[in-house]
Amino acid sequence: MVNLITIEQKILKKNGDIALENRGELDRNGVLGVGLVSAPGSGKTRLLERTLGALAGQARVAVIEGDVQTDRDAQRIGALDVPVVQIVTNGTCHLEARMVQEALPRVALAGLDILFVENVGNLVCPSSYELGEHLRVVLMSTTEGEDKPLKYPAMFRRSQALVITKTDLLPHLDYDLAEAKRFALQVNPGLLVFETSCRTGEGVAEWTRFLLDRLRDLRASRTAAPS
Amino acid sequence: MVNLITIEQKILKKNGDIALENRGELDRNGVLGVGLVSAPGSGKTRLLERTLGALAGQARVAVIEGDVQTDRDAQRIGALDVPVVQIVTNGTCHLEARMVQEALPRVALAGLDILFVENVGNLVCPSSYELGEHLRVVLMSTTEGEDKPLKYPAMFRRSQALVITKTDLLPHLDYDLAEAKRFALQVNPGLLVFETSCRTGEGVAEWTRFLLDRLRDLRASRTAAPS
Repeated sequence: MVNLITIEQKILKKNGDIALENRGELDRNGVLGVGLVSAPGSGKTRLLERTLGALAGQARVAVIEGDVQTDRDAQRIGALDVPVVQIVTNGTCHLEARMVQEALPRVALAGLDILFVENVGNLVCPSSYELGEHLRVVLMSTTEGEDKPLKYPAMFRRSQALVITKTDLLPHLDYDLAEAKRFALQVNPGLLVFETSCRTGEGVAEWTRFLLDRLRDLRASRTAAPS
Repeated sequence: MVNLITIEQKILKKNGDIALENRGELDRNGVLGVGLVSAPGSGKTRLLERTLGALAGQARVAVIEGDVQTDRDAQRIGALDVPVVQIVTNGTCHLEARMVQEALPRVALAGLDILFVENVGNLVCPSSYELGEHLRVVLMSTTEGEDKPLKYPAMFRRSQALVITKTDLLPHLDYDLAEAKRFALQVNPGLLVFETSCRTGEGVAEWTRFLLDRLRDLRASRTAAPS
């Protein structure tokens, strides 16, 4: 067992090193990297579709899709005429930095503003693998119950923003939105929280503005940094 | 990397051995073991609450709860006056056979009919770890989208039954129930499919009858077997 732990730690360390290289690559190109993580079915791809529509004409965007099997999500994104690279993990339960590193040459970073990386649907394992994004965003749908931040705290702790999805369903659910937000902020007081419905479009403008603000911050810090 | 693979295979093999021991323990006591797996928030604990209510007076039941953190689910089950053991995995993304083996002495198998084991909410990793249950049941809620069986095929392939949850929300969703079932049966043609709403109680009686039938089958095979 000691051997296994040693090897795993080495692999995690390597992952962290590659994540830093990915971050460097994004920084050099002034591209904001945004990672999306959540349980399966929380609406990552749906949020992306809405976001890409809202960003059209305001930012040049590409997407890296991670899935255990199938390229269904990539097909949905590709239908919006946005450059997309699909990573099929073939059973692996999370994306790793090296997978993103292999995908990066296939998105033309030089011409981009924002790169989204949609992780495998999994609220546990992806939290242990930095990919190099500037922002990690966790999604939680109103149909999942209020207590997910308490039960899967690592993912909420290692994210900077929380997008609550499917708010249009609230009238039909026994869901306490205030309690869900309280639980999330209890686990990570620094979380920025957005309430969205991709069906009605509620909250999408606010979320998109946040992304554009972070892009502007990244570009400003780049200009200010000594060359 | 070769070392890591070797060690992992050994651990998986060990897990399979312990799962067989767990199965033997259940068999010796004539207890039907039912594992529940799904994404976080698909409604495993809610289905359990409903099922325990429906089984009251018909079967003596206990529950093993698996969670990454917190004993919230065990508290919910315990409130129904059902024996419950909580396994907190402290970050591990799935239950393993040895965790169940350690929990078994704390549920009095001799006086039981059915033992439910609720896994960590995760559609990927638990599929690789047999626990020794007679039945593995995967849940999928109507709010998760139709294509989860295609995107997370291993879990659907290694289950014997599929419980579709939250059917009461169908009028408020763009969800094609027939397509979801078609995808599930495409991945595993042998899946028994139940459509349930724990809010309205729809389908719970059918699901409960199925469990009691399987319990009767188990007891019959036990009587028929040479001593």
